[in-house]
Amino acid sequence: MPTQLHIVTLLTDFGLKDHFVSAMKGVMLGLNPDLHFVDITHLIHPQDVRSAAFVLGQAYPYFPANTVHLAVVDPGVGSARKAIAVSAGGQYFVAPDNGILTYVLEREADALAYEITADHYFRKPVSTTFHGRDIFAPVAAWITRNISLFQFGPQLENPVRLSFPQVKKVRDNLIQAAILSVDHFGNLITNLKPEDLPAYGGGAAGTCKIVTPQKKEITSFRNAYAEGSEGEVFVLPGSTGNLEIVVRNGSAASTLGLAAGSVIGVVLGP
Amino acid sequence: MPTQLHIVTLLTDFGLKDHFVSAMKGVMLGLNPDLHFVDITHLIHPQDVRSAAFVLGQAYPYFPANTVHLAVVDPGVGSARKAIAVSAGGQYFVAPDNGILTYVLEREADALAYEITADHYFRKPVSTTFHGRDIFAPVAAWITRNISLFQFGPQLENPVRLSFPQVKKVRDNLIQAAILSVDHFGNLITNLKPEDLPAYGGGAAGTCKIVTPQKKEITSFRNAYAEGSEGEVFVLPGSTGNLEIVVRNGSAASTLGLAAGSVIGVVLGP
Amino acid sequence: MPTQLHIVTLLTDFGLKDHFVSAMKGVMLGLNPDLHFVDITHLIHPQDVRSAAFVLGQAYPYFPANTVHLAVVDPGVGSARKAIAVSAGGQYFVAPDNGILTYVLEREADALAYEITADHYFRKPVSTTFHGRDIFAPVAAWITRNISLFQFGPQLENPVRLSFPQVKKVRDNLIQAAILSVDHFGNLITNLKPEDLPAYGGGAAGTCKIVTPQKKEITSFRNAYAEGSEGEVFVLPGSTGNLEIVVRNGSAASTLGLAAGSVIGVVLGP
Repeated sequence: MPTQLHIVTLLTDFGLKDHFVSAMKGVMLGLNPDLHFVDITHLIHPQDVRSAAFVLGQAYPYFPANTVHLAVVDPGVGSARKAIAVSAGGQYFVAPDNGILTYVLEREADALAYEITADHYFRKPVSTTFHGRDIFAPVAAWITRNISLFQFGPQLENPVRLSFPQVKKVRDNLIQAAILSVDHFGNLITNLKPEDLPAYGGGAAGTCKIVTPQKKEITSFRNAYAEGSEGEVFVLPGSTGNLEIVVRNGSAASTLGLAAGSVIGVVLGP
Repeated sequence: MPTQLHIVTLLTDFGLKDHFVSAMKGVMLGLNPDLHFVDITHLIHPQDVRSAAFVLGQAYPYFPANTVHLAVVDPGVGSARKAIAVSAGGQYFVAPDNGILTYVLEREADALAYEITADHYFRKPVSTTFHGRDIFAPVAAWITRNISLFQFGPQLENPVRLSFPQVKKVRDNLIQAAILSVDHFGNLITNLKPEDLPAYGGGAAGTCKIVTPQKKEITSFRNAYAEGSEGEVFVLPGSTGNLEIVVRNGSAASTLGLAAGSVIGVVLGP
Repeated sequence: MPTQLHIVTLLTDFGLKDHFVSAMKGVMLGLNPDLHFVDITHLIHPQDVRSAAFVLGQAYPYFPANTVHLAVVDPGVGSARKAIAVSAGGQYFVAPDNGILTYVLEREADALAYEITADHYFRKPVSTTFHGRDIFAPVAAWITRNISLFQFGPQLENPVRLSFPQVKKVRDNLIQAAILSVDHFGNLITNLKPEDLPAYGGGAAGTCKIVTPQKKEITSFRNAYAEGSEGEVFVLPGSTGNLEIVVRNGSAASTLGLAAGSVIGVVLGP
């Protein structure tokens, strides 16, 4: 076994109080007792494929080559939705074909998807409600045992991609943007990049401001949490590469009343 | 060390915010640095041995031979309750003797229990409040180092078993059943098997219905979450092997006002 | 690689729903794919360095030699606060220099701290908001690859230490003490040791009592949870070595309305 083909990450909406996650791990350990698991999260809001795609998109780039990412947020379990195994950027992904891999597919030009149909790799009997345990976990474990993806089924040309809100110019001095995600601290991660905002780079105060649906205006731009004063709302280039709206030692989400999906405006000019 | 004698699962009511779980893991790593831990859950409601028994019963069967399961929900710590080490179904269990192993003992005909008395295997000094760290964790780690169970103490004939609610026929057309557990999604896991309900198999509509203490009736029977319509309450053969009452993309527990222990009725016939 | 130089613990306030913790683990696995992670907790209240110091102080002593502890509660990220690597008691610690290692530095006479300045060990580009991923995680991983601490930067004479409340004699018959921490069960961990209270050892009833700011009195002293009657408030020698105020099968914190930092009094004498 190559040194690094033993890391399996897990991302689900299964929560932390039941046996679900450990049942998947047990099934995988039965196929490969040397696996090392890394839990990305199991606290995706139930059935929220969109959030799952975002978190996976933020986490996977930091893992070494040959990591297998098992992502199961699966409201369509038991329906005709496909199961897929994907190689992309030197890593592997096993998931329902429901858009949970959107960020991976958008970012990795070499992504190849295969529909999982070869049921001799499944745990039997296959339940109608827990493919995480019966299909996805075994397939992830078999990948770590060097089964090539084409052995799981035929190549799939167009795996499902969700569309995420895009930054768009509404008027000469107005950009429409959106909140992609709210983190544990209440920081609001936008879909804006620093280069979308003249306030960064130039750095001149008053070159732009962010306006919320509740008409609140954010005019302060900083480079680190510690530069803000206590309770101040400001914009920051976040660790995701996107701009974040934050409150020092507080929650921007509750201060501003915004959530994932909220639309915001950027007014350019003094 | 045999390849698979290095997996230790943990199930407790210790929560995730304190040092308790990591202290147990540190103690075990001090005895065997090559252990791999799998957390089943640490979110059992404080002192709820019954729920712990259920979750352990659902999780352990998926683990490979020689896995050691460390289960510590221990309201009697510091009292005369015994500590036990059990071999059953090719796996090992270390726990207080308070019924937490009920499902294991019921299901595994080869179960052998030993009272843990050999205190040279304990961490010293033994506290009166944290046997998880001082007794159970070290014993689990010593098992992975091939100490045989009889070395921990004498065989115990009748380890404690809890009685869980049974399905019973009340009248010719009425079965009494119960909710065993409520999962993270709010699905209600009953003690009914598909063969208890004529609606499954035959499949004819109107062959039975479930009635709740609040006089709500569930008449819809399906095979997958995705077969239900949004918000519909229906019955499903769950991944535990038992029937579940579910709401598609919602919580049956809050919709119906039921919890673990709630009694339900099944009315047979059209 | 020495057998035990592969264990890395993590303690943060990053929560469990985002990609933050897994991004740090991915970065470390990229530098050393054989690491075993133990999560101490990620549920420290945001920016609560004091609680983080307490939990780390309780957890680290149970880990074997050469464990690397990565502790990132970092309200000053992006400011001039230093990053440090510390060897103490045969283990290693990587953290912001903000007092999070206070208990380690107080307890381990051989503690040696180094300021982390050698940026060729960092992940590039270094963000201004997530040094956990870009500085602390890589340094922790390099330690497991046998980089000596002095290679990260110059020795630091006086790493930051927080002052925690001390037990003090106010009058001949009155000791002032404090609640250091409240655990998952609602047990109140005080800064009192058994030797501070005549009720232990002597054991004579009525030799002292604890008084809360709300004038509630605790006069019952026991040695195990199971010795209390249901709902009784009593004092116990806890597994941390300190005295705890507890309620059997209940929460002393909510029963008494106390929290971390609350001051309590001990009235001595009959």
